[in-house]
Amino acid sequence: MKNRGSLVVISGFAGVGKGSILNEMMKRHEGYAYSVSATTRSPRPGETDGVNYFFISREKFEEMIEKGELLEYASYVENYYGTPRFYVERMMAEGRDVLLEIDIQGAMNIRKSMPEAILVFVLPPSAGVLEQRLTGRGTETPELVKKRLARAAEEAAGVGGYDYIIVNDTIEESAEKLHQLIQAQRLRTGRNASFIEKIRKELESFKQPE
Amino acid sequence: MKNRGSLVVISGFAGVGKGSILNEMMKRHEGYAYSVSATTRSPRPGETDGVNYFFISREKFEEMIEKGELLEYASYVENYYGTPRFYVERMMAEGRDVLLEIDIQGAMNIRKSMPEAILVFVLPPSAGVLEQRLTGRGTETPELVKKRLARAAEEAAGVGGYDYIIVNDTIEESAEKLHQLIQAQRLRTGRNASFIEKIRKELESFKQPE
Repeated sequence: MKNRGSLVVISGFAGVGKGSILNEMMKRHEGYAYSVSATTRSPRPGETDGVNYFFISREKFEEMIEKGELLEYASYVENYYGTPRFYVERMMAEGRDVLLEIDIQGAMNIRKSMPEAILVFVLPPSAGVLEQRLTGRGTETPELVKKRLARAAEEAAGVGGYDYIIVNDTIEESAEKLHQLIQAQRLRTGRNASFIEKIRKELESFKQPE
Repeated sequence: MKNRGSLVVISGFAGVGKGSILNEMMKRHEGYAYSVSATTRSPRPGETDGVNYFFISREKFEEMIEKGELLEYASYVENYYGTPRFYVERMMAEGRDVLLEIDIQGAMNIRKSMPEAILVFVLPPSAGVLEQRLTGRGTETPELVKKRLARAAEEAAGVGGYDYIIVNDTIEESAEKLHQLIQAQRLRTGRNASFIEKIRKELESFKQPE
């Protein structure tokens, strides 16, 4: 039987490189799954139900909230967004480690609904590097860069609630660190209870008189 | 500044390959230190104080017990054996991960005296494999092999008190798993509090009017 996977929550400041790290890790290593969110907003051209999102009605979404079927949810611009428990659970049961990119508030809600989830925060090597990366994108006005840095300063106060940090020096190194970190969780005693019990019983059987 | 290292406690059944895994890991990777024990027994020919053991008097040992200067200790055959806190602390402060091979009772005492220690138990892939390895050594009588397996059956009940297990299929794989596991601990949020605070302050400074 394949060992159950983990839910791995990834957060980090805008521009820190979370998405690139996840892409690089999934390119290098098999067995990972992205968590697919549920939303009440309408699909945009090219979006597929069950791939980009699970597109559901407001009634259905509120029913899921009520029944505790969402690991976390939030509403933006009159629409709900949330993480359906069934999808995450199914992937984990198949032995896959499920990746969920989400903000701090969402991560703290995951902590409550699934305490065994692994929470990882990606940090820049320095605030200066983050500013350079944001400016280097060329898509943000200086005003917006400033806003994002101010937001990051606020978010930094919440990093203590995470289990692990990754300092993103290079995408390749960070992807390997994240992979090794996730793999190490598979060695946790609590996740190997049935194997330990199997060995114990086998050893007991040697004690029987022949 | 170099990050503080971890104390890594390694236990496992007789014959499971703990020593070989540690040797292989230290051959492949730098930065590890073995914990040196203190003992009241006399040095044997070829043994060096501070390398094989810290050889100390019974009076000194009992003084260390009293002052809480030992992370754990036990007595065998009229002699004391223990783990001096100062040596482990010094290596950790130098940024080295300190390896301590010890039995279950010792490991549980370490858990009390240094709760942040990482406890790893090495298991065989099966009880049959363990029996083969013990028999294959050619140094143990069938009677002694049987005794060791009976002891292992008892010890198996204590594995739940450890943080991680490593199933020793091959020495090379196990050495890599152990290394990655130890390295992942360096990413723990609690061990990076000063770096997180540095980033937070840097980000704050961007908020100041220019």
